[in-house]
Amino acid sequence: MSGIVTNTQVTLVQLDNYGPWTVTPSPRREVDLQTLQSRLYADLSQAIGMRDGYTFFTRFDNMVAVTNGLDLEDHARIQESIRNRYPVTVSLSIGTGATPADALVEATAAIQDEGSAQDADRSELLLGQPVPESERSDDDVQIAHFDVVDATGKYTDELDAFSSFIHIEQGYAELMKHMHVAHDSLSFFVGGDNIIAVCPGLSEDDYAEAVEHVRETAGVDLRVGVGTGASPHDAGMGAKHALELAREDETDVEGDLH
Amino acid sequence: MSGIVTNTQVTLVQLDNYGPWTVTPSPRREVDLQTLQSRLYADLSQAIGMRDGYTFFTRFDNMVAVTNGLDLEDHARIQESIRNRYPVTVSLSIGTGATPADALVEATAAIQDEGSAQDADRSELLLGQPVPESERSDDDVQIAHFDVVDATGKYTDELDAFSSFIHIEQGYAELMKHMHVAHDSLSFFVGGDNIIAVCPGLSEDDYAEAVEHVRETAGVDLRVGVGTGASPHDAGMGAKHALELAREDETDVEGDLH
Amino acid sequence: MSGIVTNTQVTLVQLDNYGPWTVTPSPRREVDLQTLQSRLYADLSQAIGMRDGYTFFTRFDNMVAVTNGLDLEDHARIQESIRNRYPVTVSLSIGTGATPADALVEATAAIQDEGSAQDADRSELLLGQPVPESERSDDDVQIAHFDVVDATGKYTDELDAFSSFIHIEQGYAELMKHMHVAHDSLSFFVGGDNIIAVCPGLSEDDYAEAVEHVRETAGVDLRVGVGTGASPHDAGMGAKHALELAREDETDVEGDLH
Amino acid sequence: MSGIVTNTQVTLVQLDNYGPWTVTPSPRREVDLQTLQSRLYADLSQAIGMRDGYTFFTRFDNMVAVTNGLDLEDHARIQESIRNRYPVTVSLSIGTGATPADALVEATAAIQDEGSAQDADRSELLLGQPVPESERSDDDVQIAHFDVVDATGKYTDELDAFSSFIHIEQGYAELMKHMHVAHDSLSFFVGGDNIIAVCPGLSEDDYAEAVEHVRETAGVDLRVGVGTGASPHDAGMGAKHALELAREDETDVEGDLH
Repeated sequence: MSGIVTNTQVTLVQLDNYGPWTVTPSPRREVDLQTLQSRLYADLSQAIGMRDGYTFFTRFDNMVAVTNGLDLEDHARIQESIRNRYPVTVSLSIGTGATPADALVEATAAIQDEGSAQDADRSELLLGQPVPESERSDDDVQIAHFDVVDATGKYTDELDAFSSFIHIEQGYAELMKHMHVAHDSLSFFVGGDNIIAVCPGLSEDDYAEAVEHVRETAGVDLRVGVGTGASPHDAGMGAKHALELAREDETDVEGDLH
Repeated sequence: MSGIVTNTQVTLVQLDNYGPWTVTPSPRREVDLQTLQSRLYADLSQAIGMRDGYTFFTRFDNMVAVTNGLDLEDHARIQESIRNRYPVTVSLSIGTGATPADALVEATAAIQDEGSAQDADRSELLLGQPVPESERSDDDVQIAHFDVVDATGKYTDELDAFSSFIHIEQGYAELMKHMHVAHDSLSFFVGGDNIIAVCPGLSEDDYAEAVEHVRETAGVDLRVGVGTGASPHDAGMGAKHALELAREDETDVEGDLH
Repeated sequence: MSGIVTNTQVTLVQLDNYGPWTVTPSPRREVDLQTLQSRLYADLSQAIGMRDGYTFFTRFDNMVAVTNGLDLEDHARIQESIRNRYPVTVSLSIGTGATPADALVEATAAIQDEGSAQDADRSELLLGQPVPESERSDDDVQIAHFDVVDATGKYTDELDAFSSFIHIEQGYAELMKHMHVAHDSLSFFVGGDNIIAVCPGLSEDDYAEAVEHVRETAGVDLRVGVGTGASPHDAGMGAKHALELAREDETDVEGDLH
Repeated sequence: MSGIVTNTQVTLVQLDNYGPWTVTPSPRREVDLQTLQSRLYADLSQAIGMRDGYTFFTRFDNMVAVTNGLDLEDHARIQESIRNRYPVTVSLSIGTGATPADALVEATAAIQDEGSAQDADRSELLLGQPVPESERSDDDVQIAHFDVVDATGKYTDELDAFSSFIHIEQGYAELMKHMHVAHDSLSFFVGGDNIIAVCPGLSEDDYAEAVEHVRETAGVDLRVGVGTGASPHDAGMGAKHALELAREDETDVEGDLH
């Protein structure tokens, strides 16, 4: 790791008793479930994004957001807005910690302590405490934005669409596992050939090693831009600009790294 | 395989020149891209679903739909509606074939013949021919709906949210690859612990083998319900009911299989 | 009237017990209600529009759609999709008749016979019968598209935004009342300076008289394009093209009128 | 007026060059325009509402928001988010003043000074200055929430749906005009039988007079709840609770009035 100490605030968003709801009284139309899930995600992405947070769709019934900058009142308002506009409700659990993985462990443990995700009586939990405003700093969040080197030329324009998807998916499956085990990071596929990872203060060597790992195990060439900031948006925009630089310079890793 | 001969109609939905757009003139806010992608997907899911088709988000910039029952005019209308409401446009390419994998190969080839996904001059293609109404039959589409045995008890309520996600993701990565290579099927993660596969006329043994393969390679226990029908909705609803039966009876494979 | 005999199929969409819901257990956030209402309307507009129907937001809790071309199964599917994705449900009542006003009277009477709009036990009604496919004809729907002559030059760029709005609103209030009483038509404000009226087979003189009435009573200059077709979309697109012609030729009334 | 001095911050939202876009290269499908407009409104309502502001759909191509609490950066972010997700852009102009009518005059004048609403070169203006944080107070916004006395019993359950709508619309047309001319207020229909007015510090007599005026001119019985606060949400929620009280007590005017 580098000398940076991050302080990532993670929010676990769990749909309350969602599985049973999808088959009550009988299985609901799949297209409606898909629409419900993706719009609920879009709304969370906008609401949390208005305050510079990032939301990842993850499994859709369990989503992960990075919420540095959002306080309890912001969380409560989002929870209320979902209740007012959807047939389902959400529980929110905030965790904090030096690594994103630790923060999510904390958030998950708190929600599990209150009952099962399929407990009909457990709904609209709002748990955990955000990072106090006075303790926030410009190093709190590190975001790494990966993409696949020449994905369009090597996959999209070359292979059939599912074979392309398999390559990208296998690359993601390897990266997500490795970044979690080796680097306490949370990596999310965000569409196209893009993966965004929320990381503790990793070094250039750490990222180079991860890129190498995916190349060896999945045969997929990644490249990564890294940014750090007080909020996910600040860190993520830094990562995007660094990735643009990596594309131009044909390097594997770019960013303000130590 | 079983004696059923399917006739799957697949539509490849490709966002025109999307990658460059996301960074022009400079990288756009990630939360807006996430919102755009997931809402565009939701709209396609509804529009195609109104005519009993299924849409999968896949990579979001390249989506796959099963569109038995939608003709060229339906496709043109959906394409027009996207153009009227989004800052991006889509190309649509229809492929047909006895196996879903073949159909998508055909659809992809047609679109690649017209230029690159990142060709600024290539937009709003509408390619391919749907299955003629006179040739449609009740065996045209086979859908398999997989989920993870006791995912809530073993993962969601037990592990931290990312570790749960890793297990489900690894199971999916194995299944999608195996079903494609071994069974010419297209498998898509649809949220929670659910995977929907579009298959040719597979047998009970084929499905049992796939479940066993994922158990051995990824350590994830799946179960599957299978349905067949003239449309994705009919086949998919049959699969959902079969899966309910598999849950109740604690079997691995259920459905109207030969 | 002209010689055309229309056969308008109207669907009244009524949110079930909506008023009480908005204040239970205490008044809900206004912005959430606004979002819920406008998105529900947008979804109906798309779903009904995919089959060439038109939906008008009207009061939002009571919407009016023109649904020539949609059968009972289409209505049931839309009703189900709302139930699956919103915290509220809708009742649908279909009316038919030579005039749009008559058709809506029929649709309303059927729904009122089943109980109050604020009856907690009355939900998801699906009433009435669509025009049989065999009786549909190219004269079934007449749509008139009105706008304000030089609204941008006289109002938007000249007056403050609310004074502009008052002028347009007063013009609408006069037109809607007059077209209903004098011509059995249903007129809806659709944004900007546009009003769409669903009419029986009116003549050029009828429309000229209506334009003159609004000029005299509200001091607002309207112009109108008229189209006729088997579906609201066909009739409405004819009306739009006719209105373009009226703009170019600076005439009051255009369209294929008898 | 009462002794309260409000300080309403109003934002005029104007779609850039929207009229011409709707007919370029030929008229666009009405259902797509309706969907675009209502979703754009819904997004603004949520984005502005996340910071306690209110947005009114007004004419859809010209919307009015009350934005006390939103600074320039908030406005810029919303403008950027629309650009990233819609095929159209918006200009935003902020006005302030002791009366809402004055504030909107200021906002409109600033935008008109920059060119026409249908000027292709005039886009994404961001004009005006918000109320400085240091000058905000709990009296800044006064909201009045009107509804129709027994609308369900007298109209919805009794008349046909369009006749009900005419009554409510005529009541609104009278109220909006009267409140603007006599009380420098901006009144907006918000669905059902509800009208929300943004007012300067009016007295109980002012509101009683307005209710009486609509009863006499349009024959529609209104009742009103009034709230005051630092933000539209605070004032509006006070108005909603006051309206509940007026319903229970069968009074015409309720609220914390002087």
